[in-house]
Amino acid sequence: MKKTVNESVKIIPLGGLEQIGMNITAFEYEDNIVVVDCGLAFPDEEMLGIDLVIPDFTYLKENASKVKGLVITHGHEDHIGAIPYLLKEMNVPIYATKLTMGLIENKLKEHGQMKTTRRKVVKHGQSINLGCFRIEFIKTNHSISDAAALAIYTPAGVIVHTGDFKIDYTPVFGDAIDLGRFAELGKKGVLALMCDSTNVGRPGFTPSERTVGKTLKNIFEEQKNHRIIVATFASNVDRVQQIINCAYELKKKVIVEGRSMVNTISTAAELGYIRIPENTLIDIEEMRRYPDEQLVLITTGSQGETMAALSRMANSVHRKVSIVPGDVIIFSSHPIPGNEKAVSKIMNELAKKGAKVIFQDTHVSGHACQEEIKLIYTLTKPHYAIPVHGEFRHLNRHKQLAMEMGIPKDNVIILHSGDVLSISQDEAEVVERVTSGGIFVDGLGVGDVGNIVLRDRQNLSQNGLFIVVVTLDQYNNMLLAGPDIVSRGFIYMRESEDLIQEAKQVVTISLERCNERNITDWNRIKNNIRDDLSEFIWKRMKRRPMILPIIMEV
Amino acid sequence: MKKTVNESVKIIPLGGLEQIGMNITAFEYEDNIVVVDCGLAFPDEEMLGIDLVIPDFTYLKENASKVKGLVITHGHEDHIGAIPYLLKEMNVPIYATKLTMGLIENKLKEHGQMKTTRRKVVKHGQSINLGCFRIEFIKTNHSISDAAALAIYTPAGVIVHTGDFKIDYTPVFGDAIDLGRFAELGKKGVLALMCDSTNVGRPGFTPSERTVGKTLKNIFEEQKNHRIIVATFASNVDRVQQIINCAYELKKKVIVEGRSMVNTISTAAELGYIRIPENTLIDIEEMRRYPDEQLVLITTGSQGETMAALSRMANSVHRKVSIVPGDVIIFSSHPIPGNEKAVSKIMNELAKKGAKVIFQDTHVSGHACQEEIKLIYTLTKPHYAIPVHGEFRHLNRHKQLAMEMGIPKDNVIILHSGDVLSISQDEAEVVERVTSGGIFVDGLGVGDVGNIVLRDRQNLSQNGLFIVVVTLDQYNNMLLAGPDIVSRGFIYMRESEDLIQEAKQVVTISLERCNERNITDWNRIKNNIRDDLSEFIWKRMKRRPMILPIIMEV
Repeated sequence: MKKTVNESVKIIPLGGLEQIGMNITAFEYEDNIVVVDCGLAFPDEEMLGIDLVIPDFTYLKENASKVKGLVITHGHEDHIGAIPYLLKEMNVPIYATKLTMGLIENKLKEHGQMKTTRRKVVKHGQSINLGCFRIEFIKTNHSISDAAALAIYTPAGVIVHTGDFKIDYTPVFGDAIDLGRFAELGKKGVLALMCDSTNVGRPGFTPSERTVGKTLKNIFEEQKNHRIIVATFASNVDRVQQIINCAYELKKKVIVEGRSMVNTISTAAELGYIRIPENTLIDIEEMRRYPDEQLVLITTGSQGETMAALSRMANSVHRKVSIVPGDVIIFSSHPIPGNEKAVSKIMNELAKKGAKVIFQDTHVSGHACQEEIKLIYTLTKPHYAIPVHGEFRHLNRHKQLAMEMGIPKDNVIILHSGDVLSISQDEAEVVERVTSGGIFVDGLGVGDVGNIVLRDRQNLSQNGLFIVVVTLDQYNNMLLAGPDIVSRGFIYMRESEDLIQEAKQVVTISLERCNERNITDWNRIKNNIRDDLSEFIWKRMKRRPMILPIIMEV
Repeated sequence: MKKTVNESVKIIPLGGLEQIGMNITAFEYEDNIVVVDCGLAFPDEEMLGIDLVIPDFTYLKENASKVKGLVITHGHEDHIGAIPYLLKEMNVPIYATKLTMGLIENKLKEHGQMKTTRRKVVKHGQSINLGCFRIEFIKTNHSISDAAALAIYTPAGVIVHTGDFKIDYTPVFGDAIDLGRFAELGKKGVLALMCDSTNVGRPGFTPSERTVGKTLKNIFEEQKNHRIIVATFASNVDRVQQIINCAYELKKKVIVEGRSMVNTISTAAELGYIRIPENTLIDIEEMRRYPDEQLVLITTGSQGETMAALSRMANSVHRKVSIVPGDVIIFSSHPIPGNEKAVSKIMNELAKKGAKVIFQDTHVSGHACQEEIKLIYTLTKPHYAIPVHGEFRHLNRHKQLAMEMGIPKDNVIILHSGDVLSISQDEAEVVERVTSGGIFVDGLGVGDVGNIVLRDRQNLSQNGLFIVVVTLDQYNNMLLAGPDIVSRGFIYMRESEDLIQEAKQVVTISLERCNERNITDWNRIKNNIRDDLSEFIWKRMKRRPMILPIIMEV
C-alpha cells in the first residue's frame, strides 16, 4: 500500500456486531464523523412485548456537531429502520442510491420528517465529500436492488465497506457487482476491508437470483391449472419481478397483498426498479372476476409472521382471500433462524385446507459465500480485515478465512459494538469503549422499557400474578377491609375457591403476627405477606407467581 | 389377505397426530382396550409457563375397566413421559422391552408408583396376550436402543405399528431390524400398517448410526491435544457408546455430565446396553487430576436448553467446568425445530470463550426416510395405510407415498386425534369422535391452567399490568383512600411519576362521573375506570397493559 502520512482514523461500530441486524458504524477523524447505515433489530423472544430495537445513539448525540452525514448502503430494515429515531436526536443529511432513498422516504413520511431532512441521491460510481472524508458508492448485488459498497477515503487510507452483498453475474435488474472497481482500489492500496460475514460458514458460491426464476417458471407451468400464491420477502423486488414475469408468460393476473409488499412494490415501480406489463396487475377487489387458475397472488408472511397476509389466509381470517383445495402455495424464502416453527405451523394449516405447499429450491441467499468473500479479498488486498455483519461465530469464522487469504493474524480485527478502533497504516488498536447497545421501542415509548420491566414481564408470563389488598386503620394497623385477592395468569379463580380462602387466611395470620411483633412499617408488612404467601403457594403447587401485596389505609 | 370373520376393531389415537410428541393410541374390541404408548409433548412457545403437556385421558377413564394393558414401543419421552399421569387415573400393567422398562421405572420411582404397578419385560419376538388381543414385539432400530414395532393380532386382522423406527443394517448395539418378520407378516396378511411419518419428506435412506462413530473418530484424532466436550441427546445410548469408544482408543478419560444423561447412562450400563471399558469413566470431581487433553466430557444441552449442563458451561455458571481457549465442543445433534436460535446463542458464547465449535456431520436421524418406509410397505403389503407420528403435512406427504406404493387412495386413512376409526377387512371409517387434546402440567397442577389463564399470561407478557386500588365508603361510594397505582412490566414506575399522577386524576374523574350518574354497581364502576384508563394510556403511549381496578369498601 502506498503510504501517505502516518495519520489514524477511528472506526466505531455502535451495533451490528455480535448480532444480525442494527447495523451502524461511525468513522471519525478530528471534527468529522460520518455514519454508515442506521438499522434496527427485531426483538429476541425474551424481549417480551418489545416492537423493535434501535441502537443507542449516546455517542453520536455527544458528538452531534461533528456528524457530517448518514450514508446508507441499501434499503433493508437492519440498515435503514432506525433512521427516524436518529433524526429525532439530530438533523443530519442522508446519502443513498435511488431505490434505497425511496424506501427511506417512506419512513420519513410516516414520521413527518420529509421537510426537515436533507437528502441526496447518489449514483453508483459517484463520490460525495463529507468533511474530510470522501465516500464512493460502488455497485454490488444483494437481495434488494441498488445495494452499494462504500470506498471511504480517509486521511489514513481507503477503507472498503462491502455492506450486505453477493456476487451475481446475471442479476435480474441492472448490472453485476463492479468487481473492476474493487480491483482498482486494491491496486491503489486498501487500508482495511470491512466485509459481510453472514454466509462465511457456507462453502462455494451463492447462486444467481435468476436461478430462482427458472425454478419458479417450471413450477408455474406444472401448476398452471391452479391458483398460485407466492410468499416472499416484501423487499425482494427482483423476486417479485420474476414472479410477475412467470405469471405474465402464462397470461395470469397478479395481485399483490400485504401492506409492506404493496408499499415496496409501488415505490420500486415508481422509481423504475420493477417493470410490470400492462393489464397484469389487478386490484384484490377485482379478484372475483377471474377464475382461480388465472390468478397469482404475491404476499407477505413467508416467515410465519402472525399478522401478515399469508398467516391470515391460513387461519381463515383474511377478509378477501380464502384458501381452497387445489391452491398452490410457494414459499419463496428460507425461514430466518427462530421462525422455523411458525413457518411449519402455517404450512400445516395450508395443507389442512387442501392446498399444495412447495418450499424447496425457490430461494437463494442475498449474501456472499466463502468463494465470493475470497474473491473480494483477492481483489482488494486489504492491509487489515475487519469482519462485519454477523454473530460472533461468523466473525470468528471470517477471521480464519481472512488468515487463509494471507492477512496476518494480528491484522484481522474482531470488533465489538462500542469499541473505538484507532487505525493507521502502522497499527490498529482498540483505544476506548463508548456507550452502545440496544434501546427498546414499545409503542410510542423509546427506551422507557428496560431490564427491570422485562424481567417482570418474563416472570408474569411464566407464573402470572397474585394480588392481595388489605385496608388498614391508619392509627392501629387493624384490618378494616380485605384481604381481597385478585389473580391473573395463575389459576382460574372461579375453580379455585378453596385455595383463595386458604390464601386469605395465610394473609390474615401474617398480619396478626406483624401486629403481635409490633411491625408497623408497611414495607416490612408487605414483605411478611409476600414471604408467607409465597411459601404457601410453593408448597401447595410448586409455582411462584408474582405476589403483590397492596395496603390501603383509612 | 386371508379373511377370517368380518369383525371390526376400533383404533383411537388420543394424541400424536397433527403434532410431533404425545403419542398414545387405544385399540378396542368389545370389552378390551390396549393402549400403545403414553407420551408427553413439550410446550409450544405460546404455552407460557407450562412445564409439559400430557394427553387428555377422559376416554380411557370412562372405559377404565376395559383397559387390559399399556404397551410401550420405546423409551423416549414422547412415548413414555405421561405414564405416571395415566397411572394416577387407573392401575394398568405395563409391557415393554428391557431398556424401555428401565427408563419407565426411573419415572415410576420418582412418582412413588413402583410398588403398585405391574410390569412385564418382553423380548423381541415374544408375544403377550391382553384380553382378545395378542401383541408381538418386533425388533427395530431407532435413536434409542431396544425399540420395538408391534404386530397387534385383533379379531379383524393383524395391525402392524412401527413405533419410531429406522433401518440400520449395522447398528452399534444389538441386531438390525427384523425385516424377515415384517415379510412373514406381509405374507400372512396385514390389515393395516401404522407407520412413522417423521422423515417422510426426506428422500433416500437414513445413514447408519455407525457412520457418526467414524466421523467422531476422525475429529477426536484431529483434536486429540485438546479437551473435547460432546453434547448430544441424553437418551442416545449408542451415540454415547461411540463417544466412549473414541475416547478409550485415544486413552482419554470420560466424564458424563447433566442429570438426565447420568440417569440414562447408568440405567443403560446396569442393564447391559452400554459397555464402558474399565478405568475410562471418571467422576467429575476427579477432573482436576488429569490434564485437559486427556479429558472427554459427554453432556446434555445440545438443544440449547437454558438449564442444561452445556448452557451453564457456556454462560460461566457451571460449578465444575469452565470453558477455556482450546476446548473443542462437538454438537452431536441437529436442532429440533424451534431451538435453532437457542443453539446458535450457545455456540456464540462458546466461541467467545475461545472454544472451537464443531457441528457438521456428527449426527444422523433416528427416523426412516422415504426408501426405508417404502421397504416396510413392500414387505408388509398392508390392506390399509394409517400414517402416524407427524404433523399434518407429514401425514399428507405419507399418504402420497402410500399411494405410490399401490395402496388405493380410499385405503389410506389420515386420522385426527380423537377420531374413532372402525376398521375391518371390508371397510374403514371414522364412526365417532371422543375427547382428546393436551392437558397442561404446571408445577404440581395438572389441568388447572387453561386457555383463559394462558391468555392472561400472554397479555401480561406483552404489556405488563396496571393496578388501580380505591377504597370507597360503603354507604355513599365516596373515595376514602386512593387511587393508588401499582404497575409491573409496564414502565419503570420511579421514572414515570408524571404519568402515574395523571392516571390517578383520570381515575378520580372517572369515579366522580360515576357518582354524578348514580352508578353504584362495582362492576360498572370498574369497567368505567378500565375504559377511561385504557384510552388515556393508549393515546399517550400506544400500549395496552392489563388494567385491574380493585375496589375496597370500608
